[in-house]
Amino acid sequence: MYLVPERAIAELISARDCFTAVEQVFASMARRSAYNFPVIREAIGHRDALYGFKSGFDRDSLALGLKSGGYWPHNHERGLINHQSTIFLFDADTGKCKAVVGANLITALRTAAAAAVSVAHLARKDARTLGIVGAGHQAGFQLRAVLEQRPFGKVVAWNRTPDKLAALEKIAVDRGLEFQAVSLEELGAQSDVIVTITSSFAPVLENAVVKDGTHVVCMGTDTKGKQEVSADLVARAATFTDEVAQAVTIGECQHALALGAKTEAEIIEIGAVINGTHPGRTSEREVTLFDGTGVGLQDLAVAEVVLRSAIEKGAATEVEM
Amino acid sequence: MYLVPERAIAELISARDCFTAVEQVFASMARRSAYNFPVIREAIGHRDALYGFKSGFDRDSLALGLKSGGYWPHNHERGLINHQSTIFLFDADTGKCKAVVGANLITALRTAAAAAVSVAHLARKDARTLGIVGAGHQAGFQLRAVLEQRPFGKVVAWNRTPDKLAALEKIAVDRGLEFQAVSLEELGAQSDVIVTITSSFAPVLENAVVKDGTHVVCMGTDTKGKQEVSADLVARAATFTDEVAQAVTIGECQHALALGAKTEAEIIEIGAVINGTHPGRTSEREVTLFDGTGVGLQDLAVAEVVLRSAIEKGAATEVEM
Repeated sequence: MYLVPERAIAELISARDCFTAVEQVFASMARRSAYNFPVIREAIGHRDALYGFKSGFDRDSLALGLKSGGYWPHNHERGLINHQSTIFLFDADTGKCKAVVGANLITALRTAAAAAVSVAHLARKDARTLGIVGAGHQAGFQLRAVLEQRPFGKVVAWNRTPDKLAALEKIAVDRGLEFQAVSLEELGAQSDVIVTITSSFAPVLENAVVKDGTHVVCMGTDTKGKQEVSADLVARAATFTDEVAQAVTIGECQHALALGAKTEAEIIEIGAVINGTHPGRTSEREVTLFDGTGVGLQDLAVAEVVLRSAIEKGAATEVEM
Repeated sequence: MYLVPERAIAELISARDCFTAVEQVFASMARRSAYNFPVIREAIGHRDALYGFKSGFDRDSLALGLKSGGYWPHNHERGLINHQSTIFLFDADTGKCKAVVGANLITALRTAAAAAVSVAHLARKDARTLGIVGAGHQAGFQLRAVLEQRPFGKVVAWNRTPDKLAALEKIAVDRGLEFQAVSLEELGAQSDVIVTITSSFAPVLENAVVKDGTHVVCMGTDTKGKQEVSADLVARAATFTDEVAQAVTIGECQHALALGAKTEAEIIEIGAVINGTHPGRTSEREVTLFDGTGVGLQDLAVAEVVLRSAIEKGAATEVEM
């Protein structure tokens, strides 16, 4: 069994490798070669923690295993990050555990990669201004990954507490891009691509502020009750997701479905676009929306790349179990 | 994070420790201090493998985590055992993975311990003859663990292929006990306690052969469709189990319920007997039956004991993750 510790991950995988791994597994999911197992998510009644597993199997790559861990909201009082995740990879030929991989950075990278894959396949080619809604820990990962997908010249951003935008500004400025802190109305008016990455339980981005032709990437909603954009924006947009079953239950789509403004059959797997079995964006004026809910197979796909890289570079410790 | 490899386990835990750990966690379950999360069990469509997780949390002991792995039926062709399991323990205070523990032997020990706990709490005190139905790998573990619970003088056993009974005979004879290979009718006529440990999909032990006062321990049925004893034996017996939800879906009780011969409300958690909130056996003539389905909390409870023992004895490797 191999061990790849959290601190080694950053040196073992590039944003490009993450992008490719996530793109491939979304494609496998749409071909029904890969599937996610039911998600376990439990409020354990101790330390206010949410604990659970996301897991799956990809028959094409033979990635098999789970990401386990959760959200411990009081961890920061101990100097630990609140999200704690570990990935366990199994040998699909024997059932033996083949690797334990630290998964905190992988979770951030695979989430950003999903957004980037959606931009690569759905945003207008002439997109030049990127809008970011939210400025938490994950926002920087989203910004860096999405900037690679189009020749953006400007970043506009909004956050409930504007002083946190400095970190995003630095990322943009370091790349020689213009940066502007804006109102949500201004953000909608300027942006060709908008990424929402908040932990909101009420719409932050309203349909009216989003201009035609925008690609909206909703990455913050992963639980029943969470919501980042108004349901009528989901209704207006051609809507894509990583996994339809999650989009309609815990994703941004849950609200439009509950209101009858969208049907499950109208939600398209991004993998179908990657595989060329769905055209994706069909006009320059169409609003497209990606509901990124986060699936176990993304974690496994990226962890497999990390493991191969760690073995090659001598960063994996082999132990006899 | 600690690593406790499979080969170290045998030296780290006694049958007595397993018994206590399993008895305590059954008691916690009945007090609703501990609960198992939904079981994930997937036929992955590769190597005919069944893969999944059993998991849970015990608020009393703070045991948190999962056993992952499954059944790879072609492993023996590679010189590996077909059941492959690994336990991952988590720190309930922080969500960090605290240990990886080899779980093949633990699975055998915790299954045997469950049978032993049921015998300790439900068999007649004057039980002298133990009957074993089945002679596979797990049967020896059952025999050894159950023999500790009463002053048995004789073991009788039956298996579809009688030559496999030699291993059970050796265990009995090594303890100075009489041993006899018998028909199922003879086994029923002689036994005060009967343990069934087969992988049968049709009743092996019929109600008519079981005499009054017997304690029957059904340990082989852990899947929809499996069955070891006739449904009218379940109907006749005062019926106990580790977890009612599993007993009625994947345990021996599934068949009696399907026939309307038993109701879910009639099935008693063994933990209630341990806690003294249910009297258990109510007469010397009553037939009692324990439907052992196997829960994740058993695995976690035993793994926690193994981990503590491994740390004490220097058998756990600590790694930085």
